[in-house]
Amino acid sequence: MKVDVLTLFPQMLDGFLSESMMGRAQRNGLIDLKVHNLRDWSTDKHNTVDDRPFGGGAGMVLMPKPLFAAIEDLQSENAHRIYMAPDGEPLTPTLAEDLSQKEHLIILSGHYEGIDERARQNLIDQEVSIGDYVLTNGTLAAAVLIDCFCRFLPGFLGEEKSLTNESFQDNLLDFPQFTRPADFRNMPIPEVLLSGNHAEIEAWRQQQREERTRERRPDLLKDSQDEPGN
Amino acid sequence: MKVDVLTLFPQMLDGFLSESMMGRAQRNGLIDLKVHNLRDWSTDKHNTVDDRPFGGGAGMVLMPKPLFAAIEDLQSENAHRIYMAPDGEPLTPTLAEDLSQKEHLIILSGHYEGIDERARQNLIDQEVSIGDYVLTNGTLAAAVLIDCFCRFLPGFLGEEKSLTNESFQDNLLDFPQFTRPADFRNMPIPEVLLSGNHAEIEAWRQQQREERTRERRPDLLKDSQDEPGN
Repeated sequence: MKVDVLTLFPQMLDGFLSESMMGRAQRNGLIDLKVHNLRDWSTDKHNTVDDRPFGGGAGMVLMPKPLFAAIEDLQSENAHRIYMAPDGEPLTPTLAEDLSQKEHLIILSGHYEGIDERARQNLIDQEVSIGDYVLTNGTLAAAVLIDCFCRFLPGFLGEEKSLTNESFQDNLLDFPQFTRPADFRNMPIPEVLLSGNHAEIEAWRQQQREERTRERRPDLLKDSQDEPGN
Repeated sequence: MKVDVLTLFPQMLDGFLSESMMGRAQRNGLIDLKVHNLRDWSTDKHNTVDDRPFGGGAGMVLMPKPLFAAIEDLQSENAHRIYMAPDGEPLTPTLAEDLSQKEHLIILSGHYEGIDERARQNLIDQEVSIGDYVLTNGTLAAAVLIDCFCRFLPGFLGEEKSLTNESFQDNLLDFPQFTRPADFRNMPIPEVLLSGNHAEIEAWRQQQREERTRERRPDLLKDSQDEPGN
């Protein structure tokens, strides 16, 4: 899978790309990820890529010219072009899984007041939001999106972890986890987990998932009821 | 404001912390941010911090002992201790603004299958989720949280940007932005933005915000009607 990230702050991603599973995935050739500086497509000697918004207001807006030049340079026949924006489609596990099946992704990160609307309407196939809040720029959001869809690439997580039993599967949060010691500072773990009875452990975990979801995120249960067929 | 981040992948944050506004905020003394490696609080020669979950299942769980040791070392009288978790409280601009007023934040990032529940229940004041999806670890989520609340620190954004007119204010998405040239490849900007009539421009922008929200995120409008007093 090929991924091109277009940003004003390529170095922001250095640590993220070299560490942990993402570093391993690149070394293993699972993902071919390149980060590009939008300023490389500016055409003046000051490397300008933004200007004041028409109609007034604070902040700067990324200009259409370097955006069109950059994406037209980077795109391939099967490129799927994404713009990270707080008013985009909310990121979900389903959306991430869909993206993990694309051949080539181009991910554009905005900054300041965003990007010229003509670029959004003509250069972008999908706008994605990582949550209902605003960030100083979209580069972190791009990293979150990449981390999230990479988990669905076959071989990415390795053998230590499967995708079963985690938050948001079946619209439920995850169950509580305990590890050694079984008694820490007079806090023992729930007895059932020491029982060796797998059916009882599964039942307890399912009940914990339902209880935790009802307490913390009743909206997830409501969503699931709203969907026909569930 | 003092912020301590506790993670297994401190280098993942290098680029994020030195670049852009976050780098400037640290150089200006607006925020005193330190990243700590949880392994520094392990007590065996292999620097072990995780173990298999009781009751079986894939993945590894962070053990209570190093977690208690680390947070007890880092905490101050006014420390507010946060754990990044997909089953935590969803991050919103209001939550971010609240956090920006704390004196000292400790932010714990989990990994693999999460952390021992006894640590969650006894060491943590607030659990925060950046969205309804799962990441390979919470370090990116910590970066998103920090970026988000820093925007509310007085002086952080500088003069180029105010917090007015952005997505999620008044439960509306932002309006479309345009910058030079006014005509790019035969795509002219909306005429009203060249009118110089500020009242008309404001009315157009407000109408665009409402229209875009109705089209893309009708759930935001519903939330606003549900809240008493709105």
